[in-house]
Parts: sequence; structure tokens; C-alpha cells
Amino acid sequence: MPISETWLLPDGVADVLPEQAQVIETLRRDALDFLASRGYQLVYTPFIEYIESLSSLSESNQDLDLATFKVIDQLSGRLLGVRADMTPQVARIDAHVHPVEGVARYCYAGTVLHTKPQGFNTTRAPLQLGAELFGSDSLDADVEMLDVMLSLIKTSGHPDSIHLDLGHVGLFRSLVKHAGLSKSVERQLSDLYQRKALPELAEFTQELNFGADFYALGRYASDLDALQANLSAEIFADAAFKQAFDSVKATQSEIQARWPNLHIGIDIVELRSYHYHTGLMYAVYAPNRAAPLAQGGRYDGVGQHFGRARPATGFSCDLYALCAGKFKKIEQIAAPKGTDKALLDAIAALRAQGSNVIQLLGSDDLTSVPHATHQLVNAAGEWKVEKL
Amino acid sequence: MPISETWLLPDGVADVLPEQAQVIETLRRDALDFLASRGYQLVYTPFIEYIESLSSLSESNQDLDLATFKVIDQLSGRLLGVRADMTPQVARIDAHVHPVEGVARYCYAGTVLHTKPQGFNTTRAPLQLGAELFGSDSLDADVEMLDVMLSLIKTSGHPDSIHLDLGHVGLFRSLVKHAGLSKSVERQLSDLYQRKALPELAEFTQELNFGADFYALGRYASDLDALQANLSAEIFADAAFKQAFDSVKATQSEIQARWPNLHIGIDIVELRSYHYHTGLMYAVYAPNRAAPLAQGGRYDGVGQHFGRARPATGFSCDLYALCAGKFKKIEQIAAPKGTDKALLDAIAALRAQGSNVIQLLGSDDLTSVPHATHQLVNAAGEWKVEKL
Repeated sequence: MPISETWLLPDGVADVLPEQAQVIETLRRDALDFLASRGYQLVYTPFIEYIESLSSLSESNQDLDLATFKVIDQLSGRLLGVRADMTPQVARIDAHVHPVEGVARYCYAGTVLHTKPQGFNTTRAPLQLGAELFGSDSLDADVEMLDVMLSLIKTSGHPDSIHLDLGHVGLFRSLVKHAGLSKSVERQLSDLYQRKALPELAEFTQELNFGADFYALGRYASDLDALQANLSAEIFADAAFKQAFDSVKATQSEIQARWPNLHIGIDIVELRSYHYHTGLMYAVYAPNRAAPLAQGGRYDGVGQHFGRARPATGFSCDLYALCAGKFKKIEQIAAPKGTDKALLDAIAALRAQGSNVIQLLGSDDLTSVPHATHQLVNAAGEWKVEKL
Repeated sequence: MPISETWLLPDGVADVLPEQAQVIETLRRDALDFLASRGYQLVYTPFIEYIESLSSLSESNQDLDLATFKVIDQLSGRLLGVRADMTPQVARIDAHVHPVEGVARYCYAGTVLHTKPQGFNTTRAPLQLGAELFGSDSLDADVEMLDVMLSLIKTSGHPDSIHLDLGHVGLFRSLVKHAGLSKSVERQLSDLYQRKALPELAEFTQELNFGADFYALGRYASDLDALQANLSAEIFADAAFKQAFDSVKATQSEIQARWPNLHIGIDIVELRSYHYHTGLMYAVYAPNRAAPLAQGGRYDGVGQHFGRARPATGFSCDLYALCAGKFKKIEQIAAPKGTDKALLDAIAALRAQGSNVIQLLGSDDLTSVPHATHQLVNAAGEWKVEKL
């Protein structure tokens, strides 16, 4: 590799330079402090783990496995994975490492790595921040998690024009079970729903058991009242279906009551990560952005892999995506060389007040401080800050 | 892998649970804020890079290359390395990505990974924090860096009994050059110095060109006056040797003036990382700890690999090692369920003051809040915090 290329970075990987880094750093701190105020306790999870430990979700979600970089552990000869998602790690902590009785709330922030970008023009190294709640299957827990996620997005400086999408895998799943469909038919249906391919769906469901209901689920996916009017009564008699339906409705009304101006959309068949989730699913979108600002949902039983299945719900986001992106100019004060006590005291006082002060080195002059916005000057025996 | 083992972590890798995570998080923030106050600007460097970019130091330092996990980039088919040290990355930023005129100061904090533990009972995933200064070859720059490092260690809560070791690769290097020794003899000498094997050194240097001087360098490595008295005058006439000798002496006296109670030890032939360094080298030790709390030195020309060789000096530490280790108990306030305005206002006010407040979910009682130390109770119409 010639010198002219050694500074090239792989696609989807970037340096974060000072002007942006200080904004992301502030966002990270504010977000973790906010989550702490809501009772979510910070954990740091390892960057590498045995691949078996990281695969608690990937067993049912091959995408996560494909996204995980693998390396050989030179100590054990076993396969290690670089974390591509921190959720399975927090589930491991809840299940085994820190097994509290009652409700456990955790938050985390850290870089995860993906073998390939997960979307167009996206990073392979998101700064994932998230919160997880274990040990409560109540609707309150889902509502709390949604409220926490929305509050976090609000404090990060996004306008009120964000949009919440609500879904629930339970409706499709219970209907599939009720109709006794095969795995293969289930997959075909799921694909049609995700492609919003209504004409194809109409054709496909024509000869299907409960076909009219599967069609209605896609046709009225965003309107609970119309959906209710178009589903057969037998479906609503199914306890699992009814429970899922009611839970979406109740969540929507509870969140709307807390966030009266929030635009909430329903999409019952938005099933992108339905292998992973077990109940409510949600994502928040900002205008003019394809990728969600944050997303989450219920994934009960995730700890089963580690020997302790508990109800679980949580959300996560990429801090780079969440960052509303106003970079602040860095202000630095250049101070002259010297060990005069009055000078050193003045510098120490400025630093203690939060100013960034640089003392000149060797025979350098002001031009050696590239970001100097002010200088410390001696005016009639007093050290004073002067704008440059 | 049976369930009973999926929670096992690889050797040298650990979860950081809430009680410790909040201490490390505070230390990280305080350290970065302190470095900012000294004019060091935060950068985030990528977790993976092309192996050629990470190897600016490893060309002369095979240890770093061996410590680096390698993976194949599925986008380019090229070899990537997971960062094992952030210093080469910051050098790349100074040389190419953010090439300011004048003196550039950067700081960083992030996890690095090592294929094997670097010492007995050490982590493979240190949380590396460091500062680098590019563009000044003045003694002031070395003194500033040492002062910043010592201040950082002091603010992290270590006692005054820390110990600074000072060395300088220039003395040995210029003496080798002056004597015209072969690479193989240089390596043998370096090995003898590091093993402090004086009898062997005496024998080895007997028939060596300038042998008495090489012996004196090892024999009086920790006493500059005695060293000066025992070296031949010809050596002191060598400009490079004289400059290195004077620079250690001047640094010692400048640092001692700023830190009058600090114990400073000199070790001219402590050459552990001398392939890497080009001038002053230093490490700080705490009593009863084998590994240094922090270490650094001068490594001029590191940016050459990226097309811009500049003077460079810096230090780094592992925040887990630096952490003086007083864990704080987490305090949480449990609040009853409800959407009563007075209750929600009381909760919001407590959270705004920095308290962690959890509202009960579903039909849960106090036992559902495992870390509850206080509860919010209604006493005669007023919401008050009560100790549990």
C-alpha cells in the first residue's frame, strides 16, 4: 500500500473529528443521564464474546449472525464474535451475571460492528445506545419504554414532526396458528405484507384457509377500526389475537394521551424483525430520513438461551443517526509561556470554569494554536481574556 | 454449547456491571473534560481499519501486530484489523484527515482489543484513554504532556505515593551509532539492559568498542550525575548524546519543580518500547501494582506512514487500571403507579434534580424495584421522599 493510500478507511467506517465528536459526546452523556434518571442502570458489555453467547437472537435471526465479524480466540481456539448488537449481551447479564429479583432496567452505549452496512449509505459502526426492561409483561412496561424512547428523542433536539409507527407481531402469528398454516406459507405471506403487495396478496389469499382474514390484515393494517370491521368474528374469539389487538389499541391511546401532538401510525404487518420480537414493535421516524431514529419492542424469553426466560422489552438507536447535527465551534484561549504565579493562577481559574486554555510551547507564537479564538493578555498587571 | 455455559465469557473479557460502570463512566467524563480544559480535542477513531493503516507503529513493533485481531472485509476482500492501540489512528488523523497548521492536541477514549492479555491477569479489552500532541519538538511539549498525565492521575483519586519513571532512548541509540555497533550486538545489549544483568553486561562489554561506556550506561542508569562522571568525554562531545542527556535532566527538574512531592526515578536503559519511541519515555506506577497507571513518550515522525512526519508526543492509560476503585451504591426512588398530575410533577422534579425515579408497573409492589433505597409517598396531600 503506497503512503498515498494508508489513510483510506474502509467503506462505512469513519473518523469522528473534534467538532462532531464533542456533539456526539454530549448527546451520549445527556442520553445516559436521562436514562439513569428513569432508573435504567448503565452496563458496559464486552466487545467480543464466544459466538454461542451472541447468538441468542440470531438462532431465529440469521441477519444478526451474518452481520457479526468472527475471529479465532488464540487462548481457547474457539470462535469469537464482535458484537453486532448489544441486546443479547444485556439479556445475558439479566439472565445470569446480575440476576436481580423484580424488574431490572439497564441502559448501554457503545460501538457495534456490522460486516456490511445495514442500509443505503449507513455506517458499519453505529454507536448503539439502548435501554432494556426485564421482568414485567405488563402493558405499563411497553408504555414506559415508548415514553422513555420518545423523551430521549425529544431531548436530543428533534422537532415535533417525528412519527411513531406501532405494530404487533401477535396478530399475524396468532392468525397463522389459528389457520394452521405451514412455515412456507407463513413466509410467503410475511413477504407479501412487507412488500405491501395488495393485488398479489388478494390472489394469494383467495384459496387460503381464513384467506379473507389474512387479506384484511394487510388491507387494513393501518386502521384498527376498519380491521376489526373486516375480520371474521371467529378470529376475535381467539384469545391470543384479541389480546394482541387490544394491546396495540391500549398502547396507542396511552401514548397519545402523554404525547398529544405526536403522529402515531399503525402498521400491523410491518414485520421486518418479527422473528426476533414477541409482541409490540415500534419505530420512530424523522421527516426526510429513511432509517428510523430509534426502534424497539417486546422480545419475551430472550434470556432462555442463558437459562432464565423473562419478559423483556427495549429499544435502541444509533447515536450518529439520532444526532440532530448542530456542530459547535470549539473555543480555545491561547496563553503566553511562563511560570509566573499570577499567569498560572489565571490559567487554572479559566480551566476550572470550563474554558480550554493552551499555553504556548518553546518559541511558538499565536499561530501555533490553530483553534485559538481568544488570548490571555496582561493589561496593567492583570491577566485578561481578549477575543482574537 | 449447553445453556449452562452460554453465559461464559472468554478469558480477559468481562462485563462491567452498574456499580462499577457508573464509576468508570464518571472517570471517563472527568478525564475527557480535564483534557479538553488543557486544549486536547476529542476524536473518536474507528474500531476497524485496513491493516496497513494500523501498522504505522507495528512495522517497527511486531508486538502490536501480534496483538491485533484480523478479519476479512466482506466489501473489499481486504484484511482489516481491530484496533489494538489508538495512537496510530490519531497520528493518521493529524497527518491526513485533520491536518491543522501549528500544534495539534487530541484526546480519545475507547475500547481496544488485544488477541492475548498483555500481562499477568490483565484484560484483553482495555478502555484506552490518551492524549497526543503533534507539531512541537520543544522540551515544553514533553513537560506539558507529563504534567497533563500526572494531573489526570491525581484527579482520578490516586494517592501522592505514585512514582514517575523517566527514560530516554536517545542515550542508548546515539551511543550505539557512535560506536558503530551491529544490529545484533545492539539487540543483545538491549536485552541485557532490560534484564538488569550487570555481571553479564560487564563481561559482554569487555571487548566491545566503547565497552566501558556501555557498561556505565547500565551501571549508572538511574543516577545522571554518576553516569556523567563515568562516561568518557568523547561520548559527551557527541551532539545527539548530549542533547538526550540534557533533555532528561531538564525534564526531571522542570517536573520536580511543578510536582515537588513526586518521587521521580531515572532509568536510562528501561527500553521496553524503544523501537516505538524516539526520545523521552515515561511511566507512572502506583504502589503494589505491577502494571503502570499510565505511560507515554515521544515518537516523532509517526505520521510519516501517512505522508506527514511531525514531532509527536503523548501518553495513554487503561481507565480500568486507572480507576482507584471506590464503587458507589446506586440510589433509586420507587414511586407509585398513577398519572395524577401532582405525582407526575413530583417525579419529574426529582429526576430533574438528578435522582433516579422508577414508577411501579402493572400490579407490582415495592419488591419489584431491586435497587430501591427510597420511596415517594403521599403525606397529607404532598409527595415526599422517604428512606426505605
